[in-house]
Amino acid sequence: MIRRTSVLALALVVAGALPTMAQPDLQARARQYFQPVTAVAIRPADAAKVELGRQLFFDPRLSQSGAISCNTCHNLASFGVDNLSTSLGHRAQTGSRNAPTVLNASLHFVQFWDGRAKDLTAQAKGPILNPVEMAMPSEAVTVSRLKSIDGYVGAFRRAFPGEAEPVTYERMAQAIAAFEATLVTPSRFDRYLRGEQQALAAHEQRGLALFLDRGCVSCHDGAALGGNKFMKFGLVKAYPGAPDAGRFALTKLEADRGVFKVPSLRNIAHTYPYFHDGQVWTLDEAVRTMGETQLGWKPSDAETGALVAFLQSLTGELPEQARRMPILPPSGPGTTRPAR
Amino acid sequence: MIRRTSVLALALVVAGALPTMAQPDLQARARQYFQPVTAVAIRPADAAKVELGRQLFFDPRLSQSGAISCNTCHNLASFGVDNLSTSLGHRAQTGSRNAPTVLNASLHFVQFWDGRAKDLTAQAKGPILNPVEMAMPSEAVTVSRLKSIDGYVGAFRRAFPGEAEPVTYERMAQAIAAFEATLVTPSRFDRYLRGEQQALAAHEQRGLALFLDRGCVSCHDGAALGGNKFMKFGLVKAYPGAPDAGRFALTKLEADRGVFKVPSLRNIAHTYPYFHDGQVWTLDEAVRTMGETQLGWKPSDAETGALVAFLQSLTGELPEQARRMPILPPSGPGTTRPAR
Repeated sequence: MIRRTSVLALALVVAGALPTMAQPDLQARARQYFQPVTAVAIRPADAAKVELGRQLFFDPRLSQSGAISCNTCHNLASFGVDNLSTSLGHRAQTGSRNAPTVLNASLHFVQFWDGRAKDLTAQAKGPILNPVEMAMPSEAVTVSRLKSIDGYVGAFRRAFPGEAEPVTYERMAQAIAAFEATLVTPSRFDRYLRGEQQALAAHEQRGLALFLDRGCVSCHDGAALGGNKFMKFGLVKAYPGAPDAGRFALTKLEADRGVFKVPSLRNIAHTYPYFHDGQVWTLDEAVRTMGETQLGWKPSDAETGALVAFLQSLTGELPEQARRMPILPPSGPGTTRPAR
Repeated sequence: MIRRTSVLALALVVAGALPTMAQPDLQARARQYFQPVTAVAIRPADAAKVELGRQLFFDPRLSQSGAISCNTCHNLASFGVDNLSTSLGHRAQTGSRNAPTVLNASLHFVQFWDGRAKDLTAQAKGPILNPVEMAMPSEAVTVSRLKSIDGYVGAFRRAFPGEAEPVTYERMAQAIAAFEATLVTPSRFDRYLRGEQQALAAHEQRGLALFLDRGCVSCHDGAALGGNKFMKFGLVKAYPGAPDAGRFALTKLEADRGVFKVPSLRNIAHTYPYFHDGQVWTLDEAVRTMGETQLGWKPSDAETGALVAFLQSLTGELPEQARRMPILPPSGPGTTRPAR
């Protein structure tokens, strides 16, 4: 599903003059495309669910081996990724796509590179049962392991009060999603969008102007600077990376071949390596690759530098509850043993 | 090296009467064997070194695959262990011994199950280069990776001021050791030792009395309730687990066959599975096994329950800096890529 905005954007690219200094109307223009984010305030009614989700997120017992947690591949010490091309799952197996960050994932319109999950709850159910990822044999085995841990039974009860059988696979996923929904990371760019002119240096503002004028914004817009539409990777020129049919594998529509969800650019300086295959390691190369494949544009060294500087201003701050590790409740005598 | 205390202990076991209630002099007796611990106050002069060590402890780039950090196997979310019989290392390989907790490791007289490292600094150097653990190819490659990360160069400079070449393998290990030295976990038992009679319930005090009277204390004494001597595992009756020559493999002395460092009992309720091979999953079974193999004593269900209750009172509190995850500095363009 390629939207018309990309055509408009290409027109802009052709028409746009190369900006050489900060533009006085830049802030106003940026506000037309982007929405600033704020740290998520956890509602008291959600606190128990978020806390349960935080424990589950860090708990390797959600994997068959007892060694892989959500945080293994979406490491909150490194901006919600593992900085690997593809993650190491059960028995060190790998999938074919790079693990996207969980930070700001709640701002995405769908989840996974191919958008196959409609929201964070649906997403959370996937990797736990994926045989090359956490490899739990079934929902039932997962729930039975959780029920064998007294600390979790109590935590589910507090998170989902009034339920006769609070521990279910669905609610496990809901709790993880509730925690992940708090992982919004405001940055200097948000202060800029809110009117603080000095929050971005002149060099970064030049990068922002290029980002708007050259059409990067046609895909990477909204609150997450991405994450709100699908787009073909290789619009103008084929991406040289590993072959991947993208959404075609899901929809079998020829128009979806090579089409992926546009990733968010928030915290992009830390979430290398880049693209669905994790084959590009520097932001500099990623910017040049995007220019050529999506816009038919070869940015100069100076332009690339300015764009990279702007992208670095998108590095945000994790909320405190995401940085503080939980104390995991101990297993019970009936807890199924880790299996290799 | 079996010390004479064990002979004394066996004598005590034979002489000791079965206590059925809390003894008024129990606290005074306990103080003869154990020293209470307090949370470690980080000296301002050490703060930068501890902070660097905290980052390194959580950094998977200390492994060849880029996927295994110290915290992978010594997970601070689960009392410094991974709750696996043996840990999963490089390419999901396993060693033969259970990963001991890093909590209170600074109180141990030597490190590793066989005591082959004299202190935490010497210990920290091992797993990084061990081909079945983190599998870095050499000290030089490790140092070169660290030097390629700007954030680390600055952090080493702050941690080791005045050094022309602050980033070395030795200082990396020193920093990790400095962080680990802060992982001391005071518990209710420490309050009891300091005079707070009510800090242990009557049932737990009965367990403590048994612990003293039956001779468990002959090995598990001192500040860490263990960690201060070597002892043969299977003194009275052979341990039925996996064969392991223990210190014999190091010293080639027949007297060291099956001899290991006595592990600390602090946080033991959370650091299952037990023993050097991680083959015993419940504290109940571990207590019975120790009774039979080391003391020739079959504790009753009630005695086992009281001992387990006492051992649970040794669960302590992690210091705040151990629960807060660092933000890892990003790799540079010259950082060596993860290799499978």
